[in-house]
Amino acid sequence: MSKYLTKRSEDYSKWYNELVVKADLAENSGVRGMMVIKPYGYSIWEKMQAEIDKMFKETGHENAYFPLLIPKSYFSKEASHVDGFAKECAVVTHYRLKNSEDGKGIVVDENAKLEEELIIRPTSETIIWESYRKWIQSYRDLPLLINQWANVLRWEMRTRLFLRTSEFLWQEGHTAHATKEEAIEEAEKMQGVYADFAENFMAMPVIKGVKTESERFAGAIETYSIEALMQDGKALQAGTSHFLGQNFAKAFDVKFTTKEGKQEYVWATSWGVSTRLMGALVMTHSDDKGLVIPPKLAPIQLVIVPIYKSEEQLDTISKKVESMMVELKAQGVSVKYDSRTTYKPGWKFAEYELKGVPLRIGIGPRDLENNTFELVRRDTLTKQIVEQDDLVETVANLLVEIQDNLFKRALDYRNEMITEVNTFDEFKEVLEKKGGFVSAHWDGTSETEEEIKNKTKATIRCIPLNVKEEEGKCIISGKKSLHRVLFAKAY
Amino acid sequence: MSKYLTKRSEDYSKWYNELVVKADLAENSGVRGMMVIKPYGYSIWEKMQAEIDKMFKETGHENAYFPLLIPKSYFSKEASHVDGFAKECAVVTHYRLKNSEDGKGIVVDENAKLEEELIIRPTSETIIWESYRKWIQSYRDLPLLINQWANVLRWEMRTRLFLRTSEFLWQEGHTAHATKEEAIEEAEKMQGVYADFAENFMAMPVIKGVKTESERFAGAIETYSIEALMQDGKALQAGTSHFLGQNFAKAFDVKFTTKEGKQEYVWATSWGVSTRLMGALVMTHSDDKGLVIPPKLAPIQLVIVPIYKSEEQLDTISKKVESMMVELKAQGVSVKYDSRTTYKPGWKFAEYELKGVPLRIGIGPRDLENNTFELVRRDTLTKQIVEQDDLVETVANLLVEIQDNLFKRALDYRNEMITEVNTFDEFKEVLEKKGGFVSAHWDGTSETEEEIKNKTKATIRCIPLNVKEEEGKCIISGKKSLHRVLFAKAY
Repeated sequence: MSKYLTKRSEDYSKWYNELVVKADLAENSGVRGMMVIKPYGYSIWEKMQAEIDKMFKETGHENAYFPLLIPKSYFSKEASHVDGFAKECAVVTHYRLKNSEDGKGIVVDENAKLEEELIIRPTSETIIWESYRKWIQSYRDLPLLINQWANVLRWEMRTRLFLRTSEFLWQEGHTAHATKEEAIEEAEKMQGVYADFAENFMAMPVIKGVKTESERFAGAIETYSIEALMQDGKALQAGTSHFLGQNFAKAFDVKFTTKEGKQEYVWATSWGVSTRLMGALVMTHSDDKGLVIPPKLAPIQLVIVPIYKSEEQLDTISKKVESMMVELKAQGVSVKYDSRTTYKPGWKFAEYELKGVPLRIGIGPRDLENNTFELVRRDTLTKQIVEQDDLVETVANLLVEIQDNLFKRALDYRNEMITEVNTFDEFKEVLEKKGGFVSAHWDGTSETEEEIKNKTKATIRCIPLNVKEEEGKCIISGKKSLHRVLFAKAY
Repeated sequence: MSKYLTKRSEDYSKWYNELVVKADLAENSGVRGMMVIKPYGYSIWEKMQAEIDKMFKETGHENAYFPLLIPKSYFSKEASHVDGFAKECAVVTHYRLKNSEDGKGIVVDENAKLEEELIIRPTSETIIWESYRKWIQSYRDLPLLINQWANVLRWEMRTRLFLRTSEFLWQEGHTAHATKEEAIEEAEKMQGVYADFAENFMAMPVIKGVKTESERFAGAIETYSIEALMQDGKALQAGTSHFLGQNFAKAFDVKFTTKEGKQEYVWATSWGVSTRLMGALVMTHSDDKGLVIPPKLAPIQLVIVPIYKSEEQLDTISKKVESMMVELKAQGVSVKYDSRTTYKPGWKFAEYELKGVPLRIGIGPRDLENNTFELVRRDTLTKQIVEQDDLVETVANLLVEIQDNLFKRALDYRNEMITEVNTFDEFKEVLEKKGGFVSAHWDGTSETEEEIKNKTKATIRCIPLNVKEEEGKCIISGKKSLHRVLFAKAY
């Protein structure tokens, strides 16, 4: 496949679509809106999963698994929940195929129609709360802190690899608590876990905030989110954590006996991140040459490419590299030696730039003589000559430096792209010419929010948690406002 | 919940069903034939997954992810494959729900009917080979060694937790090769990986063999399996690996250019193990007091229970245990301290026996004075007094010993339960009175196999790989046979 990539400045959206496919992250399947996650893309997702899973376990959560299919009747029990998801549900109606009567193929067997239709889970609150009713009797059963890694399905009309697909992979946490305060604390804690993961592993700065009513999860009292900014100035919601109040407990009749012997409804949270994070990762760091992957999530952190003319030279280089690899692996560096004879060094250099490998060493006969190597960083594309004796230390230091540099670069950009405005004209101008987050006063009504959305396509991404009190006037209605909120066009 | 468990000798099947639920491994959901895997059960499955995944990666495989839903037309392309699975397929026909006209609930929106029905994957050969056509052009793209961890669905009429559920979790490997020999080698290698995992981690002895034609996977040329024996004398197929020949390559038109520039169809394998292994684990080792989990797969390897009368005593014990835990964890022992004040020590002892924790320490004030502990092994239920200084070493040694003992015990039983017979009368008698594997001559025809199955419910589990040549006569037809095969009643 050609490595030519559309430039970001030409067409950011096209650049993204091409990059995801050419870097072997994912591709569209023959099934509408569903993607195939290819081995290289999946290996990054596996690293994300491993880190997130560790963080969940460190905060006391356990994993479990609940059924893929949800009876329609469960699904309908929480009114606002079903309203939010009914329009994007895949429905199983039959459980058997048979040969067609004309013998030309197979057809659905009409005798195998389900009495009650089953929904492929778009999210699992309903089937999980149906179980929780059996699991929770007493305060001793609380808190219940459970997470599930699963596929879910929401029928989408317009899809894009990783960012919006009908089927996606995610984790969904579902917790039950004895008190409102404890549930709110849990929802906030998990928002914190997500922010920590985004910033410290993905090197992606995020803003923690709460959603407005119209942007809340269907069934939630409060939705906490982390919001990131992509290179084209559009925002991306990277993770959400919901305080569900007693809505699901009431819908599924989940009560517990308190220490004092009273019967009370439990309090709930749910929270999730998905393969959408892969899209966010790509759009935060990558460039016109391809992916740029932060070292902490890179399946290959360092690639070594031999440069040789004869087989004898290749043998000598390979012997040398073997001992280098032992040293590097002992230090926990994930290193690959690409000695394929079917491709030239230049082809390989371009390939690993496309795939975002943080560090590359090219090593030829003269390097062996001089006891040096040429080391290239993917983030800055700068070269340096390294003494052989300094190899392990240099690599270890550079991996840390690259991780830090990527975060800093993204943070500087994000901070530059938060603009305070005080009038709707300014608002529109910033959105149009600069993009990014626009910090403005809003009167707190859904009507104004809707009006701004219709006029500009910008939505309120969040009310930041650390928002400072500042009296002002709504940019649309002129009504009083007590603090600014963040608007942006969003993925 | 009551810890009383039906005895194995009373009703093995009831014992199993009760144990799985009472030990918190899994339970039935409200959806027909689908289970909820509870946190404790899932934590064992996670340990299995981690080990198996490591073995796959060490043998050169990568993970990927393919869509949950398969268009009916893909599914029909390989004739014997669709024949094998058509009768157990869940079918998605619609993609939207709506409010019913009477306002009383939600119904399927008939305007959102799919043009082509989608099947929930019962296995993924068809959707994967549709992708492989795009991925494979040249010999340089081969071998393609891919695995997927996923949920699959096969509509089952009679289900049992872990052993046979409509939805189950599994891994499915799908590989493509340039030559027939290489594909066969791969299929055999993965059978070996499964056997290695079963014996060295699950402590479950298995027989490696090939399946007869009637027991083969739908679409396979050869099916390799590992067969285990449960405590009730019934066999259980624990994993299969298939040589698929060029069947799927031809059905999906997957050709490659050889080094010599010719166009050829590729050769394929597929292989899988599932959450069924959880059932096998339970039925291989557990007893009338509950689960017995081999140390290598135990989420908790050692539990420490304080025995105290006053809060002061508990504090002193807890302080002591804290330093023990640090030492044990440093040695890689997975240890839990259960200091809950809401339950008594006796209740906890029974609880951890039920849950199969390999080692238990009870520690009271007198132990502190004497610098000793009482240590109880779950496999033999024997007690020993251990000096505090020897704790870490003793625990480490015992964990190895328990793992070995469980395997040896299961192996001795299995070997005792292989009986050679030479007549059909003997065959029936052994099956009825003793159970286990019956080693007998068979004429190699599907008719005889079918007749034996109808008359005795026993099937040919496999033709063992290491079968010795031995001329004999078929126990039914009296025709010539060149070696024995293994029959058994099976799960």
